[in-house]
Amino acid sequence: MQKITLLINCPDRKGIVTTITQFILEKQGNIVYLDQHVDRQESTFFMRIETEFDQPEFSISSFEKKFAERFETDYQLTYQLFDALHKPRLALFVSKYDHCLYDLLGRNASGELQVEIPLIISNHPDLEIVAKRFDIPFKYIPVTKGTKAEAEAEQIKTIKEHNIDLIILARYMQIISDDFVSKFKHQIINIHHSFLPAFIGAKPYHAAFERGVKIIGATSHYVTADLDEGPIIEQEIVRVSHVHSVQDFILKGRDLEKVVLARAIKAHIEHKVLVFGNKTVIFS
Amino acid sequence: MQKITLLINCPDRKGIVTTITQFILEKQGNIVYLDQHVDRQESTFFMRIETEFDQPEFSISSFEKKFAERFETDYQLTYQLFDALHKPRLALFVSKYDHCLYDLLGRNASGELQVEIPLIISNHPDLEIVAKRFDIPFKYIPVTKGTKAEAEAEQIKTIKEHNIDLIILARYMQIISDDFVSKFKHQIINIHHSFLPAFIGAKPYHAAFERGVKIIGATSHYVTADLDEGPIIEQEIVRVSHVHSVQDFILKGRDLEKVVLARAIKAHIEHKVLVFGNKTVIFS
Amino acid sequence: MQKITLLINCPDRKGIVTTITQFILEKQGNIVYLDQHVDRQESTFFMRIETEFDQPEFSISSFEKKFAERFETDYQLTYQLFDALHKPRLALFVSKYDHCLYDLLGRNASGELQVEIPLIISNHPDLEIVAKRFDIPFKYIPVTKGTKAEAEAEQIKTIKEHNIDLIILARYMQIISDDFVSKFKHQIINIHHSFLPAFIGAKPYHAAFERGVKIIGATSHYVTADLDEGPIIEQEIVRVSHVHSVQDFILKGRDLEKVVLARAIKAHIEHKVLVFGNKTVIFS
Amino acid sequence: MQKITLLINCPDRKGIVTTITQFILEKQGNIVYLDQHVDRQESTFFMRIETEFDQPEFSISSFEKKFAERFETDYQLTYQLFDALHKPRLALFVSKYDHCLYDLLGRNASGELQVEIPLIISNHPDLEIVAKRFDIPFKYIPVTKGTKAEAEAEQIKTIKEHNIDLIILARYMQIISDDFVSKFKHQIINIHHSFLPAFIGAKPYHAAFERGVKIIGATSHYVTADLDEGPIIEQEIVRVSHVHSVQDFILKGRDLEKVVLARAIKAHIEHKVLVFGNKTVIFS
Repeated sequence: MQKITLLINCPDRKGIVTTITQFILEKQGNIVYLDQHVDRQESTFFMRIETEFDQPEFSISSFEKKFAERFETDYQLTYQLFDALHKPRLALFVSKYDHCLYDLLGRNASGELQVEIPLIISNHPDLEIVAKRFDIPFKYIPVTKGTKAEAEAEQIKTIKEHNIDLIILARYMQIISDDFVSKFKHQIINIHHSFLPAFIGAKPYHAAFERGVKIIGATSHYVTADLDEGPIIEQEIVRVSHVHSVQDFILKGRDLEKVVLARAIKAHIEHKVLVFGNKTVIFS
Repeated sequence: MQKITLLINCPDRKGIVTTITQFILEKQGNIVYLDQHVDRQESTFFMRIETEFDQPEFSISSFEKKFAERFETDYQLTYQLFDALHKPRLALFVSKYDHCLYDLLGRNASGELQVEIPLIISNHPDLEIVAKRFDIPFKYIPVTKGTKAEAEAEQIKTIKEHNIDLIILARYMQIISDDFVSKFKHQIINIHHSFLPAFIGAKPYHAAFERGVKIIGATSHYVTADLDEGPIIEQEIVRVSHVHSVQDFILKGRDLEKVVLARAIKAHIEHKVLVFGNKTVIFS
Repeated sequence: MQKITLLINCPDRKGIVTTITQFILEKQGNIVYLDQHVDRQESTFFMRIETEFDQPEFSISSFEKKFAERFETDYQLTYQLFDALHKPRLALFVSKYDHCLYDLLGRNASGELQVEIPLIISNHPDLEIVAKRFDIPFKYIPVTKGTKAEAEAEQIKTIKEHNIDLIILARYMQIISDDFVSKFKHQIINIHHSFLPAFIGAKPYHAAFERGVKIIGATSHYVTADLDEGPIIEQEIVRVSHVHSVQDFILKGRDLEKVVLARAIKAHIEHKVLVFGNKTVIFS
Repeated sequence: MQKITLLINCPDRKGIVTTITQFILEKQGNIVYLDQHVDRQESTFFMRIETEFDQPEFSISSFEKKFAERFETDYQLTYQLFDALHKPRLALFVSKYDHCLYDLLGRNASGELQVEIPLIISNHPDLEIVAKRFDIPFKYIPVTKGTKAEAEAEQIKTIKEHNIDLIILARYMQIISDDFVSKFKHQIINIHHSFLPAFIGAKPYHAAFERGVKIIGATSHYVTADLDEGPIIEQEIVRVSHVHSVQDFILKGRDLEKVVLARAIKAHIEHKVLVFGNKTVIFS
């Protein structure tokens, strides 16, 4: 059996659900799950379909070709089609903070995330010990002002060699160049340690402390050319009070960061995130 | 234009989404919103459809007849069909606590709830002043052990006279008889002041205080013959700590009760709640 | 019996708790509750004390005089002393949104807030009906660009006449002048319909919708000369998703605004809020 | 410098804060933090004090002796006195679920928990690999019905040998005997995978799914002779809906369990938990 997941968006029109589901039935697909959404303001239709095909001769690429022919032009439809049986390959980018790294590796070891993690890249050597504990190749690529371009070139080369599907900035403390970002559109997920758009930029916990907020947050988003401005995938918050120091904010925030990043990765790898403009539709 | 909302459940089968949406298109319906869910464990298909019909000659009852003919037997399909333009008529049952009553009347006055509230019934005269403030008829029907059957008969008679669609137990402190409940299946919504199934029965805040929980909750559910055991529609919680007395629990709980009850009513009147067994599917 | 509540802050020093509590004991006060906090970073000591005095001859002003003499200079101590039996008098400022108004009046009618509300001021006549329902004087003071100074003069005059202790901007849609603010330092509480500091300014729900956040919030804060920048008293959040329109954000936000504003008022009137710099200490 | 933390409770009486703080000052202690609470219903006074002593000749045991002499009888005072510089030694009990184990070991490796973890005990050999990754001795002690007493004897022996201060049941799937529990009063922390007291006993996620709740939770508590009935330290919740299967509940619950258990451990090792009756006071 083969399984595909389709993410679709197009201008809304009468009968669109029927037309698409009928197309899949004609191709002998079994619709296992369907989730749709209409953005009334934008008159845009969104759909996620999980389909199974039992026939031995079924070819994903051939199905995709026919699907595109039928809908792309006539329905001004944009789609993404995923082989749902492919296990995504992740590269983790880290610097010195290890909590998100431990968390993701622990989850993967537990079988909670269905991914391959063949590569950890860092601009510092500190976390090699964590990589070793989980038997994952650790690539130390230092980044300085002068060597940033070369470092990114090496990062990209390494990523390509490992057939990476998704890059996770797991508290990676370097800004990624526009050029790098443009090569991995909606394939880089960052965890920002604030409730965006509050406290954009560096040291958000310190800024939150200064402002005297009663709730702090963390935000996972796709990385775009504009720092901390990419489409938000997930956010979570926790209460703080005057008894908490900046250090307490940071400690409490660690748990937020871990959970929010893991949820965002999970949604992405299950093909439940559709980016539209600078926003996301998160299917259930 | 006419609008109907359909709630559907049936054994899951291939092509069911297509078949039903196609039926509606054939009847010249415009599907404005569709939300579906498959319960894999029970192999059951659930769907909610909002449809608009523009043709002047369209008749809801005639559509319903055809829909039933086509699907009820062949698909073992259960459906509820609502005239989406009908404004639901609510009867509020209260006793002495006024916070949910004030909240619901305030919301309705604000235009937040799109309902008629032609009737408040109480077993105590205390809250007549609240009803008066909002110019709503207040019916005082005392209930004692000996007169319960008569009191319920009068309640039912009054409800029928006012063409009530939905009964809200807004902290009504009397147990409703099985006989009464059976007359209004899934048409009575209660707010229970605990995080069910914890602290079933009377004085849940006192019980929560005794147990030393760190979080308290409120639960809105349909009333069934089994006390506090009906299908849950909505729940919400708030943190408490050792600094809070039972009185604090009660005060904090009031805000929970108001919000949870209002959300449950909103979901029900928008026909987003489908009861299946003793559980609810809440469509988005 | 007389009851006073003291809010104190001063540079931290050894033995400060003992010294102050001993002073109160010497004056035959019974310390009913004591809550203290040390801000290590600022080396500042904060304390809230509830005290009861049984002796018939006890005079609050005389006690205050002695307390000030003993501590103000020697300990560089700042204090606020409240007669805990005085029922605070609130003026509610509103415009056209009625949900916070209904909520506060309902709470007060329920006995949930222990305050007097002798005055509602509005720059629009629309909500007079709500005031009438709860038998509260409603003062319509229109505000236009040209008449703002006069309008504020009239507002201030009315507030003085009614011996108001606390002004609540219950979705009052006018910016208060610096001059007005300076007359009621930390006596004006506003509810802002965003999770500050995100979405400062007008139309925060629209801005949140545009940004595609997954959580929205509301913030209650003291009004200062800088718009939306005053010390935060309370915040709360609720989840949103792609299925929610701006209208849904607004509706969900209403419940946040009501709860957050009510909590902030409650904390203030129980003298649990101590403003320090641009932050608040909220005692338990 | 030496540091001690005191947890105190006694019948409430006038001047108690002053008396105790004065005693500490006399002994040249510097009170770094003081948090007190009065349970009015029980007329009981609770206090937590962090104190530093600079004098070289200071002896904790001598201080404790004097403190006990002064207060135990006269004030019917119960106290716990901790050397705040002692690093607690934890034994982790596990079975087959590894998520809490990975989480705690990751936290400790990150320096987030200030503890020693010299011992992992399991009734299954499966998680030895996790222990190895973090270089922690793993003791496999199988438990069967017939060998339970012996197994517990061996567990206790091992615990004593390692000078364990706190036992963590990190999803340990065996019931501990009353005899074992009595040997480690308030020194065993369990994580229960439900929002207690809802869903006591086995398979709480399945029970929650059957009941159709909209929120699930996790609870960390001290283990007592009554299963799942011990004093609650911390609880947390997460929303679920009809789209979630039992498997989803279990997955979502893992994150709750990890966070709740970690918070409970942190509160305990910082001596912020005072057990009183079957409830806890959690100091800030």
